[in-house]
Amino acid sequence: MKKRIDLNCDMGESFGAYTFGADEELMKYITSANVACGYHAGDPNVMNRTVQLAKDHGVSAGAHPGFPDIAGFGRRLIEFSPEEIYRLIAYQVGALQAFCKIHHVNMNHVKPHGALYNYATRDRAAADAIADAVYDIDPNLVLFGLAGSTLIEAGREKGLKVASEVFADRTYQTDGSLTSRNETGALIDDVDTAVKQVERMVSDGVVQAVNGDLVNIEADTVCVHGDGPQAVNFVRKLRKALDKAGVQVGKV
Amino acid sequence: MKKRIDLNCDMGESFGAYTFGADEELMKYITSANVACGYHAGDPNVMNRTVQLAKDHGVSAGAHPGFPDIAGFGRRLIEFSPEEIYRLIAYQVGALQAFCKIHHVNMNHVKPHGALYNYATRDRAAADAIADAVYDIDPNLVLFGLAGSTLIEAGREKGLKVASEVFADRTYQTDGSLTSRNETGALIDDVDTAVKQVERMVSDGVVQAVNGDLVNIEADTVCVHGDGPQAVNFVRKLRKALDKAGVQVGKV
Amino acid sequence: MKKRIDLNCDMGESFGAYTFGADEELMKYITSANVACGYHAGDPNVMNRTVQLAKDHGVSAGAHPGFPDIAGFGRRLIEFSPEEIYRLIAYQVGALQAFCKIHHVNMNHVKPHGALYNYATRDRAAADAIADAVYDIDPNLVLFGLAGSTLIEAGREKGLKVASEVFADRTYQTDGSLTSRNETGALIDDVDTAVKQVERMVSDGVVQAVNGDLVNIEADTVCVHGDGPQAVNFVRKLRKALDKAGVQVGKV
Amino acid sequence: MKKRIDLNCDMGESFGAYTFGADEELMKYITSANVACGYHAGDPNVMNRTVQLAKDHGVSAGAHPGFPDIAGFGRRLIEFSPEEIYRLIAYQVGALQAFCKIHHVNMNHVKPHGALYNYATRDRAAADAIADAVYDIDPNLVLFGLAGSTLIEAGREKGLKVASEVFADRTYQTDGSLTSRNETGALIDDVDTAVKQVERMVSDGVVQAVNGDLVNIEADTVCVHGDGPQAVNFVRKLRKALDKAGVQVGKV
Repeated sequence: MKKRIDLNCDMGESFGAYTFGADEELMKYITSANVACGYHAGDPNVMNRTVQLAKDHGVSAGAHPGFPDIAGFGRRLIEFSPEEIYRLIAYQVGALQAFCKIHHVNMNHVKPHGALYNYATRDRAAADAIADAVYDIDPNLVLFGLAGSTLIEAGREKGLKVASEVFADRTYQTDGSLTSRNETGALIDDVDTAVKQVERMVSDGVVQAVNGDLVNIEADTVCVHGDGPQAVNFVRKLRKALDKAGVQVGKV
Repeated sequence: MKKRIDLNCDMGESFGAYTFGADEELMKYITSANVACGYHAGDPNVMNRTVQLAKDHGVSAGAHPGFPDIAGFGRRLIEFSPEEIYRLIAYQVGALQAFCKIHHVNMNHVKPHGALYNYATRDRAAADAIADAVYDIDPNLVLFGLAGSTLIEAGREKGLKVASEVFADRTYQTDGSLTSRNETGALIDDVDTAVKQVERMVSDGVVQAVNGDLVNIEADTVCVHGDGPQAVNFVRKLRKALDKAGVQVGKV
Repeated sequence: MKKRIDLNCDMGESFGAYTFGADEELMKYITSANVACGYHAGDPNVMNRTVQLAKDHGVSAGAHPGFPDIAGFGRRLIEFSPEEIYRLIAYQVGALQAFCKIHHVNMNHVKPHGALYNYATRDRAAADAIADAVYDIDPNLVLFGLAGSTLIEAGREKGLKVASEVFADRTYQTDGSLTSRNETGALIDDVDTAVKQVERMVSDGVVQAVNGDLVNIEADTVCVHGDGPQAVNFVRKLRKALDKAGVQVGKV
Repeated sequence: MKKRIDLNCDMGESFGAYTFGADEELMKYITSANVACGYHAGDPNVMNRTVQLAKDHGVSAGAHPGFPDIAGFGRRLIEFSPEEIYRLIAYQVGALQAFCKIHHVNMNHVKPHGALYNYATRDRAAADAIADAVYDIDPNLVLFGLAGSTLIEAGREKGLKVASEVFADRTYQTDGSLTSRNETGALIDDVDTAVKQVERMVSDGVVQAVNGDLVNIEADTVCVHGDGPQAVNFVRKLRKALDKAGVQVGKV
């Protein structure tokens, strides 16, 4: 029975004069920071500061590449071929590696962002393109993807170490997929319920689907949100609950 | 007496559907390609293709970072602090390094572009920021800068290998600086005159200033232009003339 | 039997230092210019020059709004809601209107560009959003859309004057739709065949589908391409052939 | 003695997922909204919402054009020729006019933003370019500029109605210029002092310079800030104080 979990959070999503997220506060509780790379959010100043911040808190720094779309925050699907996806991953991972070098930090992982993450969850060619790019740049990088998804499959087959990601505040279907945000009951608003869901995924390797079924789920890392009024409060509670439950919180 | 020179050219300045320059043709004659990094020109697809092209022709690949300004092609001065310049250099060099890794190419050099190049020629803080960023990412990279400029000084003091750049088609002042483009007689239109100027700079280490004075000049690399109807013709002629004059054309 | 046709061409698609298309040459032969509005191509300098150029040649100026995607030239579908499409149409039409005012030109029409045009051809909500935006800004504007498409329907129902657009160099299916570019035989490479197709659409109101069927088609305006080595030659031939066939070439 | 003042505030500076400023709250107290036009901040969705918001509160809507630089929030000087400035003003004013048309609102004014505002304060050619563009698009628009500046001069000479802008929270020099932000004592942190400064400028037409001199100043409109923790509180206090002092707060 697994008793260890990574807590990852999207970080460095400020942009120019625009601030976003409670990065400084959250760094105290998480173990992996997914740093935006300037395509959907972030800029060189923010990337530099965020890698420094992760280092200061002993948090793993990873790349969080997205579609080139600041205006849409990387949440809109844009038509890109697998070859193009390979290259936009390469570009962004490379850019963040420069800041890791500057701060003498080893980049730990890559987690695609937003619409790119979702696309790679269901499209095998996109997933392969991402896995290939990550592998070609550094085969020691860990690929983060939705537990049970095509992206995890693609990474595993490529020979990458993968981290299956689970969500605290989303409900699951009986096939292990997330309930679509378009449906009611997709989100778990109650912090205690969310914390319980994580505890169970980590301790027992199962999640209770919306229809009541217990579904097996691999949980290497849990995604916590960096924005919203409850973000810091939630992570603090989750971390406390995991500690109490004897779950070791640590990097993948 | 120096009898060796590098020929460098800005490359990979196409962008999306927009093509720019005669890269494929020019790769046959040059020895160093300055690859645009997506800030003033270029995109991940173009960067990937250009590094591959340089590799295929045995041409050194270097980063050509500029101000973030596709609309202005990096030719407009934009207010950036030295700290910000450090980070935009890091970002772009890192992004190109990813494509170098993918193609198993060692990045050779960094040459700032356009308004950033000019700014670093006269502003020591900007020059230091560039030299620092290059050094911190990879101390083996060669820093290209205007012969005799602040950028060359900054690179040398930082401990970087530097390459003093000269121009075939620009006239010089008696202090070794370029005649401003705003003045008449700044440009050398005649190909033979331009070729002669390069020959003399390489063979004798001097250039004849507009007032007739002979001025000492260091010439490690000569910049040839990648666009314009005469670009390919000029490089072909220059290469031929240098071969004939017994000058070895090769990487810095 | 209709004996009049408008020739429209996408114009002003240069951007900053990047030139695109043979606008000056083509203005001599066309009757409507679809001016890019800075989202997929064009910039304030180019827009200004293009409106002036259209005016000088007595060519109608229209807005050619697209998705905000210079890197993709507006050819990539990006997820936008109908409300967002309404607003991006408004923004771009408004921006071009400023240049029309400056040059004392009445804006004549709006034709969506690339992926937005194609999306509006098949998605009624997007088509309605476009028609609504055009109408709300100026109900006298003519809406250009693919002959027989949802966009033409939406415009007509809104009360706008519409112009059914046909293509010289594309083949048609028996239902009046264009053969997909992914299929062989989608393009007509032979100039004479293309010119004949237009003549027949204008004179007889029919087009011969790929299976040999004669299909009724409304043809108010024919799209000619502004880039490619054959662009100018083709338009010149088409114009000549139409003149010879007694078809009046003029604005919608 | 003038007893009437306009309160203007930069509005609509959110962008995509990034929120900025307390627009809804501030609309209750101001009389003129300077709406960002998508170049330094804002986007079509935000512009649409902001014009609607201004209309709902009976607040004048004006265009707030800036340099094309979301990453720099329009605060960085970018090299643009006067001709280019003319066109970027035209583009942005035109874009906002579309949203004014949609909401049946008459655009009231134009106030350049940030680095463009400052540049026009000291550079007559830039100031003329702005005045020309505004005039050519709509000669009834009011041009907002720093009291006593070149921009006000340029607008007046062009024949535009101008509004001299003063600042509540900035100190003044004896020549009527603002103390540079680089000097200590440039900002007035104390709300009561700031309110008093405005009262005096409006009621007596003078401001006390940092050296104690009383300086004549024209005050048609006072700029209040839309961001920062004190923004709403300050405007509320200012409005109350002006009401109490018998100053009529109303549109220019």
